[in-house]
Amino acid sequence: MTGRLYGIGIGPGDPELLTMKAFRVLRSAQVVAYPLSDSALKLARSIVAEYLHPEQIEVPMYFPFKLEESAQPYYDKAAETLAEHLQQGRDVVVLCEGDPFFYGSFMYLYSRLSDRFPTEVIPGVSCVMASPAMLGTPLTYRNDVFMVVSAIMSAEDLKKSLAVADAAAIIKLGRHFTKVVTVLKELGLYDRAKYIERATTSQQRIVPISELDPAEVPYFSMIVIPSKWQP
Amino acid sequence: MTGRLYGIGIGPGDPELLTMKAFRVLRSAQVVAYPLSDSALKLARSIVAEYLHPEQIEVPMYFPFKLEESAQPYYDKAAETLAEHLQQGRDVVVLCEGDPFFYGSFMYLYSRLSDRFPTEVIPGVSCVMASPAMLGTPLTYRNDVFMVVSAIMSAEDLKKSLAVADAAAIIKLGRHFTKVVTVLKELGLYDRAKYIERATTSQQRIVPISELDPAEVPYFSMIVIPSKWQP
Repeated sequence: MTGRLYGIGIGPGDPELLTMKAFRVLRSAQVVAYPLSDSALKLARSIVAEYLHPEQIEVPMYFPFKLEESAQPYYDKAAETLAEHLQQGRDVVVLCEGDPFFYGSFMYLYSRLSDRFPTEVIPGVSCVMASPAMLGTPLTYRNDVFMVVSAIMSAEDLKKSLAVADAAAIIKLGRHFTKVVTVLKELGLYDRAKYIERATTSQQRIVPISELDPAEVPYFSMIVIPSKWQP
Repeated sequence: MTGRLYGIGIGPGDPELLTMKAFRVLRSAQVVAYPLSDSALKLARSIVAEYLHPEQIEVPMYFPFKLEESAQPYYDKAAETLAEHLQQGRDVVVLCEGDPFFYGSFMYLYSRLSDRFPTEVIPGVSCVMASPAMLGTPLTYRNDVFMVVSAIMSAEDLKKSLAVADAAAIIKLGRHFTKVVTVLKELGLYDRAKYIERATTSQQRIVPISELDPAEVPYFSMIVIPSKWQP
């Protein structure tokens, strides 16, 4: 009997935003795997730290953050480590910030393992939903076109995409912040846009965009453009 | 002392997909309000039925489903009922399928009450995340443009919007299913598209699109177009 593989969404940062299902599966797994960021920070682990118990085997997985090409051997290696545990009959939980299938690294493990082992994906609360909740800003109404775009895109592509959106979330701001602000002004979206970083964590920060120092904008930040249809 | 108003996301249907925070707040509130659909079905209530206790005051709220214009007086009336409970010092929880600020009716209560009473919004798992998890289909990678569109839009608008998306969710299918399929074929997205209805509920159904009877497609169904970048 092999073990079961679980990709569990652990939500945006507040440990209480795990679903009850994710909590149950996490508590009962023998192996808990999680990605490390480039700076070797255990961000995903820190969200659920209070739920772990000492008998659980932890598997930190290092994935290069920026260069997609060179990450593949790291996914191969992590998948093999997890496969060994699964073959020994141990259930393995992979911690996924937000939701497992939404802009994460779990998919690279899923594609390598789900054919070989029984696999379950437990959806989670995305920062795309958590940020409007923290900002107190309803996001989408009725038949709005809603869009998630990455700030890494070129100004031209950002403009082309956002032009068809009624509401949007712009993720991965970091050093692309100034470019995004220029695009928002050109599209007439600047006045509606709201900024938040590290939503629902203890380091959450909400600042008017006009008061932000572009040099201080982290990767884990978001600009929310709420629907123009405010009731 | 007035009570507190909570809009809580209760997720897509599986009762275990409530967050631990939503569960805690729900259990401790004196008043539980929820929308009724046109057919007077207590869909939201049914998701959390096992968590309610008999001392809680229930407030079913009828909102007309289809005609937005005439819904405003119903929102006014529901808001006044909730305001009376809040003024009496009772905490009021409003059940929101999926996430409170994402295509829901909670915003209409929020806009009427959040200025007058302390209000908290607890984000939830959206069916947009839950459906790919149930389908076993990773949704978005890296710098994908992700989009949510409503099937109610015209074929022309659907085409214009989806043309800029790398991945998408098409919601509220119902009687618009055939139109959507035509659009997907024209855009070359048909082969990637996957169908699911009532994701994570006991009535969940996954069917290949080619085998669907258009007359049977319910409102609570979705077509997921996963990213073209599959690992």
